[in-house]
This record gives sequence, structure tokens and C-alpha cells, in this order.
Amino acid sequence: MAFSYVSHLECPKCNKQYPENEIQQLCICGSPLLVGYDLAAVKAEILKHQIENRPNSLWRYHELLPVKDEKDIVTLGEGMTPLEKFRRLGSVYNLKNLYIKDEGIIPTGSFKTRGASVGISKAKELGVKQLAMPTNGNAGAAWSLYSAKAGIVATIVMPLDAPLITRKEVYISGGDLYLVNGLISDAGKIVGQLVKEKGVYDASTLKEPYRIEGKKTMGYEIVEQFGWEVPEVILYPTGGGVGIIGIYKALLELQELGWIEQGKLPRLVAVQAEGCAPIVEAWKKGEKESAFFENSETIAFGINVPKALGDFLVLESLYATKGCAIAISEEQLLEAQQQVAKLEGNFICPEGAATIAAARILREQGWISEDERVVCLNTGAGIKYPETVEVTGVRTLQPNESIPIISRR
Amino acid sequence: MAFSYVSHLECPKCNKQYPENEIQQLCICGSPLLVGYDLAAVKAEILKHQIENRPNSLWRYHELLPVKDEKDIVTLGEGMTPLEKFRRLGSVYNLKNLYIKDEGIIPTGSFKTRGASVGISKAKELGVKQLAMPTNGNAGAAWSLYSAKAGIVATIVMPLDAPLITRKEVYISGGDLYLVNGLISDAGKIVGQLVKEKGVYDASTLKEPYRIEGKKTMGYEIVEQFGWEVPEVILYPTGGGVGIIGIYKALLELQELGWIEQGKLPRLVAVQAEGCAPIVEAWKKGEKESAFFENSETIAFGINVPKALGDFLVLESLYATKGCAIAISEEQLLEAQQQVAKLEGNFICPEGAATIAAARILREQGWISEDERVVCLNTGAGIKYPETVEVTGVRTLQPNESIPIISRR
Repeated sequence: MAFSYVSHLECPKCNKQYPENEIQQLCICGSPLLVGYDLAAVKAEILKHQIENRPNSLWRYHELLPVKDEKDIVTLGEGMTPLEKFRRLGSVYNLKNLYIKDEGIIPTGSFKTRGASVGISKAKELGVKQLAMPTNGNAGAAWSLYSAKAGIVATIVMPLDAPLITRKEVYISGGDLYLVNGLISDAGKIVGQLVKEKGVYDASTLKEPYRIEGKKTMGYEIVEQFGWEVPEVILYPTGGGVGIIGIYKALLELQELGWIEQGKLPRLVAVQAEGCAPIVEAWKKGEKESAFFENSETIAFGINVPKALGDFLVLESLYATKGCAIAISEEQLLEAQQQVAKLEGNFICPEGAATIAAARILREQGWISEDERVVCLNTGAGIKYPETVEVTGVRTLQPNESIPIISRR
Repeated sequence: MAFSYVSHLECPKCNKQYPENEIQQLCICGSPLLVGYDLAAVKAEILKHQIENRPNSLWRYHELLPVKDEKDIVTLGEGMTPLEKFRRLGSVYNLKNLYIKDEGIIPTGSFKTRGASVGISKAKELGVKQLAMPTNGNAGAAWSLYSAKAGIVATIVMPLDAPLITRKEVYISGGDLYLVNGLISDAGKIVGQLVKEKGVYDASTLKEPYRIEGKKTMGYEIVEQFGWEVPEVILYPTGGGVGIIGIYKALLELQELGWIEQGKLPRLVAVQAEGCAPIVEAWKKGEKESAFFENSETIAFGINVPKALGDFLVLESLYATKGCAIAISEEQLLEAQQQVAKLEGNFICPEGAATIAAARILREQGWISEDERVVCLNTGAGIKYPETVEVTGVRTLQPNESIPIISRR
């Protein structure tokens, strides 16, 4: 039995195939490539229940991941993040089965770690020595830290406005860090030029095929955590969209393996900020691709992506699962972030909070019914976003003063 | 079979016993109380291998935890944090078996979560509605978030200098927050007065008996993760010392259960900062208690505790296991923090970094030998400590500029 059943790479647009044992970036047609596996062999040789007692890491699904030699795995103990039921908030929202998949409980405090662990491991296996990527912060932090462990030089370009902590994560891990006085799209152009001129490995979102493979493990985990069943709705904060593409890919693979029931998929929901909603605009018009969203802005920095390379794959996953796309205001997401902390004790990131606000709104609109199992993806720890919490009206005491009265704000 | 085999509380100084089904704080003699279990019954009824396939949470050890009704558990998915081998750093330090137990990968990003989950769950079971505690930041954040989930009002008093993010965690979860222009000992006096005057539950370190029970699960996990064997050395960053007290208690319990070999315990090492080293001073003199450490100061804020209530228990654990105590300079711990990030990809907290520096020094001194299994406890995520990383010399580009040359700092 093989450690990995990876078989080839394939273009979802023109169907051209590529071998997986050499470095590949985009298809010659310009589309991202997807990773293929010999699923028939996995189906014949592996039982899903064998997975259940494996170590608590996304690498428990190694047969369905692209790394062929276990020695190439670069891990910090990522994956199998908690899936927790929100009883109190669910009762406020009239949702009896509201869940959070909490991706803040992972190395680097962000779900970007999944893509980094699988992407860097495969890059190491393919002999990559240098890579470059643009980032809104968290992905760059994760790729820099995992690159450090793998001994790969990582050039990371991020907007000046990206969360300050992510800059420090790149710096302390010895990443080759540049700031840009602009958006992630500007950082992308700078990386593109470097890749073209110097021939370094392009680790930009979807320009290497393996980040999706890391992200898809969120889909495997949700299904395994529900006892190999699918919930009715999964809400995902959508910037570049790799997570929703990955979860959709995971669900299709699990169906083909017969590990979940045929013909029953969760409705996937792409959640965006009102200040950056290209997928929502496209979905409303029933279009297959999105248009560049001008002057985008949101406190949920991770989903400030005005035009995603994989937009067509995101939209396909929505149409195919009878899902939808929804835009959330800044007030709504900050309110949801506070509600979650006050009722459920999780300090979540603003992107994750957008999915909570979306669940509330879709329930109010009747798009989600009371009994449906609803999974909100919190993509990062709130502790990486101190700027989302303004502390006001707190009293400072001198050493010998006393607290006048117990009163809750 | 019972969910918990908790039997009573007992004073380690005067041996007075107390029932566990009502609220208890300190012993009347002033000592912290320890929680007792019917270990003979656990030994007769539970096999250690039954634990192995349980959910990935510290509650997998529920028979050895104080909560009697599963419904009282307040959980955010904490525990079973990664135990990872540091191959590259180990080779630099000439330590063939150097491990990190990474407590940054846990809700709230700090090991304080363990004490909060068990402490708040038991408080809920006992009917507590209000509690108060002094904190250096992380404990207050964790207790405030878990209190929010449990519907308990939490009054949290922390120094103005405590990490800013922890203030925000208390605030967003609706905690009753006060800042004090002083040290944790000043915060402790303020809480003490509140407890005395208003009769709220005192959740100060070791003044309630259950925080140790949460922390001891680190010991269970290390042993389980080594396949029910003990490593030779465990290094712990010691402020209040609850973790090292808990780990020692866990090891004694595991011996009594026969789940680990008799007579073979890891040497426990209390690691402190040179700027706050009361335990080190006491250990050097072979004393049973520590003296108040005047004018304490360190960037490793969590171990800035000039006099710990449980100092005698910490010292006992060192003497009983042939361990030691060691003080680390600010430069040494910051250097270790950088080495870990650059070679192993973990962004650890300064307290955790102190244990890494200590492992290096104790190896150099020959106190640790080359082949011994050495576990360093990283008690929190580096992302909670942005002030430990100063970013210098990074270039800011304009949108149409390009990167001149790939060069690693």
C-alpha cells in the first residue's frame, strides 16, 4: 500500500494532464491545476474507519495527499481542529445545530497553515529551494514558518496594512520580507515579475497546485467529525477561495470513495464583506467568473481579494451544491464577533465572524431551516487581530485602591 | 463506572481533608488544597489503552478530573497539543531527542486554558455565579472567555503592563476588567479585598483547587504521547508554578495506577528569568520555600511572579525528581525564540523560549546527556507577544517597483 495515491495533475478548464513528479505551476491555458488520485485503488485498499485512530493531524489522510515519501512531511502538528456546537448562540439565532470549525486552534493561528504544510512538504519533495508569494498576511506567515523548517528561502510580499503580527512571524522565521504600499494584487505583480526574471517557485494562491490539497482536509475533517456524514450547510469566508474549492473537492472525492452517501452534498456558502464582494456580485448575476472589485476595503483583511484566480471554481462549487453567496457589513461582522465571545467564549477572527453573521441572516431569510446542521468556518484566532477590539471605559487602579462595586459592563 | 473518581480535597501541609462537593478555597492552615481520587477504583476499572481512542481533548482523562457530571463541562476543544521533535535545533544543541510540547496550539493560545476549562467547569458544577482573579494576562483571558461560555461573571485584575491582547480578550468576552498600575501581587491584594468584602469565588492561582487538575493533564498527555513512557527531563517555565505542580501530581497518579513504570520519574526543571528567579534562589540554598523577589522584571511576563503561593510544592517536585532550577537572561531567551522560529518554524512565547535556552545550557553543563529525551514546554503562542519581535531593515516597495535581488537577511 502506497503512502500517497497521487496520480497526476489536471486542468479543470482544458483537461490537459501533467505529471506530479516535477514542478508545475499554472496550466498553459492559464488555469490553476488540480491534483488527481487513484481513488479506485484507495477505495479498494483503505477503509475509512482505519483513519479514525490515526494521529491527530491533517496527515492522517496521507493517502489522499500529494506527498509520496513520509520523510518529506513538514509538520508542526496541524489539523483536526475542534468542531464545537454553539448551543447558546444557536438558541439566539434559532439554529438548533450551529457549529464552529475552529481553525484558530492550529499552528500560526490561521487555517493558512494547512496549505503551507502540504504545499511546503510537496515543494520540498520536488526539490524547491526558493519560493515567492504575495499575501494578505496569514498565508505569508504560515509559508515563511514552514519554509524555515524545510530550509527553503521564502520571499514574502505583503501590503503595509496587513496585520502587523504576520509581518513579525515572517521576520522572526527569517523570511525575505517586503512590504508594499498597496493591495495584495500589487504584491502579486511584484512577485510575478520576480518569478519571471529569477525563476523561483511561484507559491501564489492557486499558482502552485498543492495548497488546495492542504485546505481540502477541512472538508475531510468536518465529515469525519460528523461520523462520516455531511452537514446541510457550510459557510466559508471567501477571499482567494482556496478553502471552499478544497472543501468541494474533498466532498467529491469522498463520494467517489463511497465514504459518504451519494448525491447528498452540503450547500456551500461563500461569505464576503460588503467592501469586497466580487463573488457575491457574480453569483447574483449567475455568472461563471467575477469582475475585479474596485476600491475594496474591509477590516476582515483576509477576504480583501478583489479578483481571485480561482473565482470560476468557487462559483462552480456554489452552483453545484445549490449554495449561495452573501455579503456582510463591517458592523454585522464585528457584532457577531462580540456575540460569539460573550456567549460561547471563542475569540474568533473577523473573517470567521462574517460566517456567523451570514448564518444568522440566512436563517432569518429562511434559506437555512431551524434543524439543519450548519458549520461556520472560523479561519483564524482573534488574537491575531487586536485591532478588531477597542477597549473603552476600563478603570485603572493604583496598588492600594479597591474595586468599588462588582458591575458588568 | 463513574464519569469522575474524584473523592475529596486534602491539604499537602497539614493533611486536613475537605469534601469536594462544596466550594473550597485554601486550607484553614493557609495552604493550597489538592484534589484526591479513588485511584484504586480507577486502576480496577479502567485500562490506559481505553483512553487512547477518545476524543482529542484533555477531557479524555475525565475519570481523573474533578467534574462529576459530563453536562457541566465547559470546553472549547482544548488539549492533546502537539508533541514535536526538534531535529534541526536538537542537532545544533547536541540533543538527539529534543521535543517541544506546544501549548500555543490551544484555545486562547496559552496553556492557561487547561486550568480555565477544568476550573470553570467545576465552578459551574458547584454553582458559582461570580469569581475574581489577579492575572499576568493569559490566565485572566482564558478564565474570562470560559466564564463567558459558562455564564459566570468574572472580575479580572491585571497589571497595566500585561500583554495588550489579553486585555482585549477579557473585554470582548464581557469580563469585568480592571487594570492596576503595579504587579500581579498588587492585583492579588485588590482581588483579596474584593473576595473578603463581597464573598465572590476566589479564582486566584492555587486559591481554588481545580486549576492544578487542568494543568496536570499536560503530564498525562506527555506520557501518553510517548506511548505511556516518561521522558528523562521536562523543562517548565515557572511563575506561579501550577503547571510543574500539576505535572508532578500527574506522574505520581500514573505511578499509583500502574500506567507507568514504578520508580522512574522525569527530572523536573523549573526555568525562570534572571529578572525574577525566586525558586532558583531557594533551590540553590536547598530551601523549602522561596523569598519575595524584589523589583522583578522580564519580557517573559507570564513568569514575572515574585513569590508563588505554591512555591513549596514546586521545590518539592524538584527535590523529589532530582531536578533543578535555572535562571535565563533576556538575551538568551530571545535568542532561543529566534532559533526555534528559524530552524523549526514554531513562533513560541518568551516563557517557552526560556526552556529551550535552559535545555541548551544544561546540555552544555552536562546535566542533560546527549541521548536523553528532553521535553520543553512552550506555554503559549508567540503571536500573543508581538513586542518580542522587532522588525528592522525591511524594505517598503511602491506598487510598480520590483524586488532588486533575492537576499536573505
